[in-house]
Amino acid sequence: MQGLQSFISADGMGQLFQQSTVGLEREGHRIASDGKLALTPHPPKIDGAATSFFIQRDFAESQLELVTPPVHDTSELMQWLQAIHEVAVRSCDHDERLWPFSAPPALPSDEAIAVANLEKAEDIAYREYLVKVYGKKLQMISGIHYNFELSDDFIQAWYQANDSRQSYQSFKSNFYLRLARNFLRYQWLVVYLFGASPAAHDSFYNKLSDKFDHPIRSIRNSHLGYINKDDVTYSYANLEEYARQLTANVDEGRLVAEKEFYSNVRLRGGKTAWELVDHGIDYLEFRLFDIQPQAPYGIWAEDIDFMRYFILYLIWMDEDSNMDAVRLGNKIKTAVAEEDAFSRTAYYEEGREILAGMRQMLVAIGGPKSVYGILDKMLDRLDHPELTPAAKFYKKAPDNKTYQIMGEEIAAKNAEDIRRYPYLLGGFTDMELSTQLLMADAIQGGYYIDILDRDQQIIRLTYKDHQEIIKNANITSKDTYISHYVMENKEVTKLLLEEAGYQVPKSQTYKHLDQAKADISRFVNRPLVVKPKSTNMGIGISIFKHGGKEADLQAALELAFDKDDTVLVEEYVDGTEYRFYVMDGKTQAVLLRVGANVRGDGESTIAQLVDEKNQDKLRGNDHRSPLEIIKQGPEEAQTLKNQGLDFDSVLAKGELAYLRDNSNISTGGDSIDMTELMHPSYKEIAQEMAKALGANISGLDLIIADYEEAATDKNYACIEANFNPMMMMHIYPAKGQGQPLNKRLLQSLFPEKTHYTKEG
Amino acid sequence: MQGLQSFISADGMGQLFQQSTVGLEREGHRIASDGKLALTPHPPKIDGAATSFFIQRDFAESQLELVTPPVHDTSELMQWLQAIHEVAVRSCDHDERLWPFSAPPALPSDEAIAVANLEKAEDIAYREYLVKVYGKKLQMISGIHYNFELSDDFIQAWYQANDSRQSYQSFKSNFYLRLARNFLRYQWLVVYLFGASPAAHDSFYNKLSDKFDHPIRSIRNSHLGYINKDDVTYSYANLEEYARQLTANVDEGRLVAEKEFYSNVRLRGGKTAWELVDHGIDYLEFRLFDIQPQAPYGIWAEDIDFMRYFILYLIWMDEDSNMDAVRLGNKIKTAVAEEDAFSRTAYYEEGREILAGMRQMLVAIGGPKSVYGILDKMLDRLDHPELTPAAKFYKKAPDNKTYQIMGEEIAAKNAEDIRRYPYLLGGFTDMELSTQLLMADAIQGGYYIDILDRDQQIIRLTYKDHQEIIKNANITSKDTYISHYVMENKEVTKLLLEEAGYQVPKSQTYKHLDQAKADISRFVNRPLVVKPKSTNMGIGISIFKHGGKEADLQAALELAFDKDDTVLVEEYVDGTEYRFYVMDGKTQAVLLRVGANVRGDGESTIAQLVDEKNQDKLRGNDHRSPLEIIKQGPEEAQTLKNQGLDFDSVLAKGELAYLRDNSNISTGGDSIDMTELMHPSYKEIAQEMAKALGANISGLDLIIADYEEAATDKNYACIEANFNPMMMMHIYPAKGQGQPLNKRLLQSLFPEKTHYTKEG
Repeated sequence: MQGLQSFISADGMGQLFQQSTVGLEREGHRIASDGKLALTPHPPKIDGAATSFFIQRDFAESQLELVTPPVHDTSELMQWLQAIHEVAVRSCDHDERLWPFSAPPALPSDEAIAVANLEKAEDIAYREYLVKVYGKKLQMISGIHYNFELSDDFIQAWYQANDSRQSYQSFKSNFYLRLARNFLRYQWLVVYLFGASPAAHDSFYNKLSDKFDHPIRSIRNSHLGYINKDDVTYSYANLEEYARQLTANVDEGRLVAEKEFYSNVRLRGGKTAWELVDHGIDYLEFRLFDIQPQAPYGIWAEDIDFMRYFILYLIWMDEDSNMDAVRLGNKIKTAVAEEDAFSRTAYYEEGREILAGMRQMLVAIGGPKSVYGILDKMLDRLDHPELTPAAKFYKKAPDNKTYQIMGEEIAAKNAEDIRRYPYLLGGFTDMELSTQLLMADAIQGGYYIDILDRDQQIIRLTYKDHQEIIKNANITSKDTYISHYVMENKEVTKLLLEEAGYQVPKSQTYKHLDQAKADISRFVNRPLVVKPKSTNMGIGISIFKHGGKEADLQAALELAFDKDDTVLVEEYVDGTEYRFYVMDGKTQAVLLRVGANVRGDGESTIAQLVDEKNQDKLRGNDHRSPLEIIKQGPEEAQTLKNQGLDFDSVLAKGELAYLRDNSNISTGGDSIDMTELMHPSYKEIAQEMAKALGANISGLDLIIADYEEAATDKNYACIEANFNPMMMMHIYPAKGQGQPLNKRLLQSLFPEKTHYTKEG
Repeated sequence: MQGLQSFISADGMGQLFQQSTVGLEREGHRIASDGKLALTPHPPKIDGAATSFFIQRDFAESQLELVTPPVHDTSELMQWLQAIHEVAVRSCDHDERLWPFSAPPALPSDEAIAVANLEKAEDIAYREYLVKVYGKKLQMISGIHYNFELSDDFIQAWYQANDSRQSYQSFKSNFYLRLARNFLRYQWLVVYLFGASPAAHDSFYNKLSDKFDHPIRSIRNSHLGYINKDDVTYSYANLEEYARQLTANVDEGRLVAEKEFYSNVRLRGGKTAWELVDHGIDYLEFRLFDIQPQAPYGIWAEDIDFMRYFILYLIWMDEDSNMDAVRLGNKIKTAVAEEDAFSRTAYYEEGREILAGMRQMLVAIGGPKSVYGILDKMLDRLDHPELTPAAKFYKKAPDNKTYQIMGEEIAAKNAEDIRRYPYLLGGFTDMELSTQLLMADAIQGGYYIDILDRDQQIIRLTYKDHQEIIKNANITSKDTYISHYVMENKEVTKLLLEEAGYQVPKSQTYKHLDQAKADISRFVNRPLVVKPKSTNMGIGISIFKHGGKEADLQAALELAFDKDDTVLVEEYVDGTEYRFYVMDGKTQAVLLRVGANVRGDGESTIAQLVDEKNQDKLRGNDHRSPLEIIKQGPEEAQTLKNQGLDFDSVLAKGELAYLRDNSNISTGGDSIDMTELMHPSYKEIAQEMAKALGANISGLDLIIADYEEAATDKNYACIEANFNPMMMMHIYPAKGQGQPLNKRLLQSLFPEKTHYTKEG
């Protein structure tokens, strides 16, 4: 492999070299609100099937494993980690939260600890074997696995440059094997820099004499951690040898299964060692990372970046020519893990060399500026052991009591942060609320998610072999392309509804302002609505509830023609407007929208009442929340004035004051769920209307005289059918029961999947 | 019915009164190019099933019946009439055309005339009965039926105003019955004004002694025309009486079936007289109209308007109190029909009164200005009999020979006009070409068509109970709403295609111009394409076939970011671009687009060659034709200059010169069908790609190194998938076989329908 460094240093290659993808798996125990290990089963809101991607169970029933997808960008990786944490914690009942340390919390007796209640009998049997051989407690250690894959384009280019006689698959496997060997040789540095388990709670030890007499760096990486017995043999020389030795361990009874082989590097590419030989290595999994106690999601973005460049450096650097480098590295790793956390490491010089080498590589490959800063920080840790996570941790929590309290406090704070805004999915708050919710449901429901276009809210969900692409959380493969053009067109909508026997307001269509003006005398003083044919959200619409004068009608026509080439003059229908959300031939939700308002308490001014109402966590700004903050601007002042009020007025107890005449949620209006209250006849009409429009999902606006009276052909009319209708106002209404449209969409798209997660 | 006139005259009612709808049925014989009655069967390209709406057969196999939908607007009615004529004539093989007179062309012997070969045995039996009773020849007379329906809102309003004790249905039936009686009383005026069959060819008469000794006004309305024997009784007093007498005629053997009752008014609303009693009258059918010889589609728009206001006047005017008014009217009708075409009618004074009354009514209801002019014209006809169609006709064609020649000449000219632009559907040329074609196919294929939104190209096709809404001739219920967002998004498209194992050019995505500029050094001198993520039609795209300099790349990036927030820098793939049109999982058409060009003949200048090429009827301007006129502007001059040529250069025989570098059809490029020539492997790949995108209809652009060589993973790449792809260039290519995508769409949408019409 002559010339790898100069190959990477060549024009353009440095960037390609850095195009690696990383995926994380974070383990962590659920604890009860009293800080004790949760003895409850896996949260029933989470799909616990083996097919679940993002949230799985590890060894114990209480031990969650949170898995990110592999992504290139560190900040995106952190976003996923946050999102998955949020869904996991919010899915736990009884205010459970996540234990923030690698070493477990105070443990109950072994009998009380349940191994994970998985689907497959063999998975349970394996866990019971581990209990027998290692005891339950060792298996209760949690950590973070770091999955790393180089850009295949880079390896391809290097393969081309090598004129190798190997196949590409062999070349690539050998390339990764070399990385694996170098990693095992120098893994101690990661243990030193990120070790964060200096001690464990006394209840962790099988016997107290096992305890170290000094704070160490990492229990996980010490002899008490995941380590095989000495008789287990291994080799990373080549894939065949790796497979031969691994299978021999199993065949000859030194291991019960291949996965019992505890190495801090796992070769990924096949379910079994021999499958790996056939298929070659796809990527590597590094498994030695302790959970960082203060990091809300167990790891810091900087640590991810350090690891990325440390791994790249292991590719970049020469290989230790020592035949036994791997075995040596494993020994050093354990030794460093067991060093006193406050002492300088015995391998200090090698550490400095590595960090210096990394810096040189960064220059050669044009690495990002931020990583230089991270290197400085790590150099500091090398020079000052008291700055290592292990030392800092131990300083704060030197005994059982402080350890347990610190864990409980961090867990409680993390959980509180996570539960603050249940309608947001942390990490993805730049996306539309409805897509955030759908993604949360998908994570909970065990689907895999690809974000195909983040700006455009296009995601793909996968369950087994079934994929569905979804935009805006309701544009799917179940609606037809033509149906959206039908709903977009008010004339066509009305024509189809009328043909199907439903009530729509009569209207006249105009294509020229002059034509409309010529007819204007017919419309004077008649209750009517002037509206552009194709616009939405009330744009360009004028309502003459009690009829209008000629000049006003003229102005309304001009406004409407300003927005569209075609304008409807439509009969005004008296009654209250309700939004019916129909999906799959069923009215899923009915909503009433009421203009921004406050209700008096006999003491507070309107300004105070508004402030108080705005405290609701559901209210925010700019559509980043289900409801909007009620403003106190000139329009609100004018609306109050029309009622003989101002912001300083004190309303009597129960008295209602409106701050807006319009009922839009976007100007602080309230959404009131009416799904159960609405007379069923209208719900039937709405779902039949959607059918007449060929729509799977539609938001139908019906004017209804009295929602408690059955529909006749006189007491309602449909004024609009909306494609891509708003969802959040139904899911998180200001009043009444939320309707989980997002969950129902998943059920609709994946009818074959058992949706055993409960709604809510 | 006191006060009908003052009710109609009230504010707003005059307009509502005029909101009538009219539908026409035009009968006409197919003739061969030699002017003789066509003895061929009903054109096989036309769906001859009983379910066919627009084109049916009447009595004889040669006798087409062209049926418009009911529409309000006269000009739209004329558009339908034109469109249906065009489809009918173009569907005839052997250059057949339509005989333009009510009286038939020179007829062969009775034996040679075939009665219509309809599906139902009873329909054939009925026609054979008619032959027995009336002879074949009478049945060969053609005419136009005028179906008339008032606005139901008007009748409703009049019903409300009447405080009637009848049900609305009875009220409405009686309202129409009154109109029917008045029409039958005054029908003679229509015969006078529009009679256009002063004589027939000798071969029409069973015996020559039947011939009149003078030119009459209308054979159809004479005693030789559609008239029942004297023993047939009838009454229009009320619906029950009407039904009783009609069924008695049948029961007692005076008629073989209800439809044998030849009245110039048919009451419409039920298949049988008693069904009509149950259901009530929906509208009336007036059946006395002669075909106007010079009118390309058998009737003039003015005649339609006159009829509309004549009928409205029959509602407006008082009823003749004479108990026998109907019988009287029928007698006057026959008498007027048989008057000498050049003589003043005996009912002149009554005619003048009617026209004067119509004028008064027009004033009262605010009728359109244009109708006053028509009234003046009709008054002229009344005053000057030589201006009647019958007189004018006879003057030109007083004998068998001139009659036959005039018929042949008009038929030939009409057919020539109709066949000139086979890709246009006359009447609807404001719509997109592909929708025009689809509508033509639907007319031919026996579907019913609703134009739901003409500007937006949204139509609905109906076959039996099955309806499909279609926009732009390819947006249907078979494509999913999400698939269009997938295709619109080049990044998502490429991701899905790549995942599915297909070749796409590698690309880098940028969301900020600065980011892209920072990477620019990587792209210098590399063959690549800079393009906005979501635009179409080449907008904002720069191609660097042989690599570009930094400044040029920078300009290209700026241009692309000007069009979109996200820009791709994509590897340039060498080869030729082909468009694959996929529908229903099958590549339906493959096209090569070549820049505007001419090929030399060794004599002509390039300017002459361009002019000659532009003579092609497929070429026109502004997308109103499948190909565009090649311009001779500065861009074309520059392109020629680059080849060392100008417009005056003379090309050697076979030498090719390009007038444009770009291959767009819109700048005069040629479309070359490659469907059969393309190696099947690419066609398979294209259809699989569409499947991977979840698209039913997609236009995939593939760059292919050599279309004759099988696809490998190196010799092609897909650069784009288009929703709503252009269709016309495949259907009417400049070279090669057109692919009837429009017909295949119908088959795809209505798989249950027998598509026995041949393609083409």
